[in-house]
Amino acid sequence: MRNMLIAQSGGPTAAINASLSGAIQEAIRSGEIGQVYGALNGIQGVVAGTIVDLKAQFKTQEDFSVLECTPAMALGSCRFRLPDPDKGKEIYDAIEAVFDKYDIGYFFYIGGNDSMDTVDKLSKYFAVKGKDVKVIGIPKTIDNDLPGSDHSPGFGSSAKFIATAMQEIIRDCYVYDTDSVTIVEIMGRHAGWLTASAALPRTVGARAPHLIYLPEVPFDPEQFIRDVKEVQSLTRNCIVAVSEGVRLADGTFAAENFQSGVVDAFGHRYLSGVGKYLESLVRDKVGCKVRSIELNVLQRCSSHLMSATDVREARRIGSYAVRFALQGHTGVMMVFERVSNKPYMVRIDAKPVSEIANREQLVPRDWINPKGNDVTEEMFDYLLPLIEGEVPYPTVNGMPVHFVIEKTVAEPVK
Amino acid sequence: MRNMLIAQSGGPTAAINASLSGAIQEAIRSGEIGQVYGALNGIQGVVAGTIVDLKAQFKTQEDFSVLECTPAMALGSCRFRLPDPDKGKEIYDAIEAVFDKYDIGYFFYIGGNDSMDTVDKLSKYFAVKGKDVKVIGIPKTIDNDLPGSDHSPGFGSSAKFIATAMQEIIRDCYVYDTDSVTIVEIMGRHAGWLTASAALPRTVGARAPHLIYLPEVPFDPEQFIRDVKEVQSLTRNCIVAVSEGVRLADGTFAAENFQSGVVDAFGHRYLSGVGKYLESLVRDKVGCKVRSIELNVLQRCSSHLMSATDVREARRIGSYAVRFALQGHTGVMMVFERVSNKPYMVRIDAKPVSEIANREQLVPRDWINPKGNDVTEEMFDYLLPLIEGEVPYPTVNGMPVHFVIEKTVAEPVK
Repeated sequence: MRNMLIAQSGGPTAAINASLSGAIQEAIRSGEIGQVYGALNGIQGVVAGTIVDLKAQFKTQEDFSVLECTPAMALGSCRFRLPDPDKGKEIYDAIEAVFDKYDIGYFFYIGGNDSMDTVDKLSKYFAVKGKDVKVIGIPKTIDNDLPGSDHSPGFGSSAKFIATAMQEIIRDCYVYDTDSVTIVEIMGRHAGWLTASAALPRTVGARAPHLIYLPEVPFDPEQFIRDVKEVQSLTRNCIVAVSEGVRLADGTFAAENFQSGVVDAFGHRYLSGVGKYLESLVRDKVGCKVRSIELNVLQRCSSHLMSATDVREARRIGSYAVRFALQGHTGVMMVFERVSNKPYMVRIDAKPVSEIANREQLVPRDWINPKGNDVTEEMFDYLLPLIEGEVPYPTVNGMPVHFVIEKTVAEPVK
Repeated sequence: MRNMLIAQSGGPTAAINASLSGAIQEAIRSGEIGQVYGALNGIQGVVAGTIVDLKAQFKTQEDFSVLECTPAMALGSCRFRLPDPDKGKEIYDAIEAVFDKYDIGYFFYIGGNDSMDTVDKLSKYFAVKGKDVKVIGIPKTIDNDLPGSDHSPGFGSSAKFIATAMQEIIRDCYVYDTDSVTIVEIMGRHAGWLTASAALPRTVGARAPHLIYLPEVPFDPEQFIRDVKEVQSLTRNCIVAVSEGVRLADGTFAAENFQSGVVDAFGHRYLSGVGKYLESLVRDKVGCKVRSIELNVLQRCSSHLMSATDVREARRIGSYAVRFALQGHTGVMMVFERVSNKPYMVRIDAKPVSEIANREQLVPRDWINPKGNDVTEEMFDYLLPLIEGEVPYPTVNGMPVHFVIEKTVAEPVK
C-alpha cells in the first residue's frame, strides 16, 4: 500500500480543518492507504521535509471533532507559488526526494487559487516523469472565488459569521434616536460574495443593511453620497455593507486613492481601508454621526460560529478527494455541483485543475441590482442554504477547545 | 396596585435585555404590580412621554427567551444626563407628569455610571416632593467599571467574546512561519477589565497573548518596543492585547498623540485608535510584518456568544430589583457580592446609589504584573467564573432571531 501526504495553504478559514479531518478519516476507513502524513506549512514543508505522522495523532472520534472545530490551518500554511519545473529544478528535486523517502502515492493540497496552481504543476510534473503519484486539490476559500465549483468550503462559515455580526451591529445601531451612518467593511478584494452575505439579516426581519457595494461594480463616491442621503430621507440609521475591494471607474481601489494623501506621524503611508474612506466621505458631505466597522480576521477564523452545512461539506469533500485518488484521478480539484436549492442538494465531482487555477469566479452582474447598491433574489436563494445549521463545539473554562498537531518530524516506515 | 416603568440607557451590552426580561417576569409573578410599562430611549422617553405597554408584548415564556438573546437595548437608549432639579424644572415637571399619568410607583433604570446619577437625582427628587415612587438602578456595563458591585451584568458576555475571539486570532496568527506582530485593540477607556480577559485563552493551552496593556498603568512606547523584541527572541509570532484607553505618563491617550499629526484627504484629523498607533510603532522600530485588529462593537453586541453565567445573573438582578422595590427600597443600585470563587457563588444586594454614581472601579494595581505588561493569577480567578457556560439561541435561516418591541405609545389604564 502506498502512503498519502496532505498539506494546507493560503489564508485561514474556519472549515479548512474539517477537510483535513475528512481526508484522514477516509484514508483510514478505506484500508487502501498505508501511512497518513502531513506537511507543515504547505508545499514549503514538503520542500523542507517537515513531514509529520497524522494517523497516530487521532486516538478517538472526538479528536476529529475537535480538529473540525479548530480554525485556521492545523498544519500551518504558506504563501508560496511553485515555479515552473524548468525554472526551479532544485525545488522539484527536493519535493520528489521527499515523496520517494516517504513513498507517497497520493498528495492532497487544501487551498485556494494559488494552491490549485501548485496542484496543476505538480500533477503534470509527475506525469512527465512517469511517477505514479495522484495529486488532488481540495478547495477552500472564504472569498468563494474558485471557479468550477458551485461554492467553496470555508465560505459558508464566513458568510454565516458576517450575516450574524451584521444582524447584531444593526441592533447596536438602532438603540439611539439620532441620525447616523454605519459602514461595515467586509473582506473580498475581487469577489463580492462575502459582502453580499451581509444582506441575509433582511430575511429574518432586520431593516438593514440599506446599501451594499460589491467589487464587481465600479464604485462612484458621488453616487454613494446620493444613496446615503436617499436612505436617510426614509430612516435615521443608514447601514452600509462595503467590500474592501470596491474600485473606482478607473480600476484603482477606492481606499487606495484615499490613502495616498495620508501619512502617519512617522511619515508612513497610512494603511486604512475603504470603511475609513467612506466614513470620511460621509463626515464631509453628509455631516451626521458616522462610524466604520471592520469585521477583520474574525470573518475567516470564527470557528465558534460555523455553518453546519459548510463543515459537513468540507469534511465530505476531503473524504471524496481520497476516494477519487484511489480511483486513479489526478490533476483535478474536487468541486460541488448544486442539484437543487429547495431542498438543498449538492453532488461532489472533480474537474481538471488546469481549467480552474489562476481564474476567478465573480458575482454575476445580474445578481446585483441595476443601481449597483444591492443584491437580487438570486443571491439570497444561493446563499441561504450555505449558512444553515450550527456546530456545537467542545469547551473548557467557557472557551472553545482547539486541536494542536504535534510537530515532530516523522521517520519513514520501512 | 401601583404600576412600574422600566427603561434602558448608555451603551449596548449583550445581556441588558436579560435584566429587562427578569424585571418584567418578576413584576408579573409578584402579583403586586399593576401595569408594566417601558420608556423608549431611556429617560428621554420618560420626558417625551413615549411609554409602551410591555406586559401585552410577551405571550409565552419563549418570548422572554428570545428577548434575552437579543443584543443592545430592546427599548432603545439615550445619552442624556439629568440636570439638577433647580436647573431643569421643566424636565422634572415633565417626568413627574408622566409618572402621575401612568400612576408609576416603581421606576427601574438599567444602565451604567451616568444612569446611576439619574437614579440618584430622581430618587432624591421624589423624596423631597414626598411622592411615593421607588427608584432603583440595575447595573449594566461591558466596561465593568461600576463600583460597589463585584462585577456588572454585560461584562461576562463581552469578556467571553473577547477571550474566544482572541483564541481564534491566535490560531490565525500561527499559520505562517514568519516573524509577525499582531496587536488586538480592546474596548475600555479607563478600566482594563475587558483587555484583561484577552489573557484567558492561556488557561486552555493558547501560547498567547504575550503582552497585555491596561489603562491603569502608564504606557511607555519605548518599553513597549523592548517588550515586543523580548517576546520575539522567544517566538516568531508576538501577540499583544491593548486597551483603547492606554495613556502616556503625562495622562494623554497614547493614540491621541499619534492622531494629532495625521489628517485625511479632506484635511480632517484622522480618527484612529491605539492599535494603528502601535502598528506604526512596530513597523518603524521593529520592522517585521505587523497588523492591528479592532474587535469593535462586536465586543458589546455579540449575543450569539453570551456567557450563560452573565445572562442568568442579568436576569436575576433584574428580578431582584423588582423584589427590592416592593420591599420599599429606593435610591439604590442592585449589586453582586461574590461569596466564593470555587464553587462560584454570588449574592444579590442593594447599595445606596449616591455611593456609586460618578465613580469608577478600576483594576487593582496588584492584579497587574510589576512590569505592567500582563495580569496576575488573581485576575484569572476573578474572570473565569464570569464567562462560564454557553447560551443556546433560537435561529431562523441559520441566523439568530431577535425580539422587537412594539413601539405604540400606551394609553394609561384607568
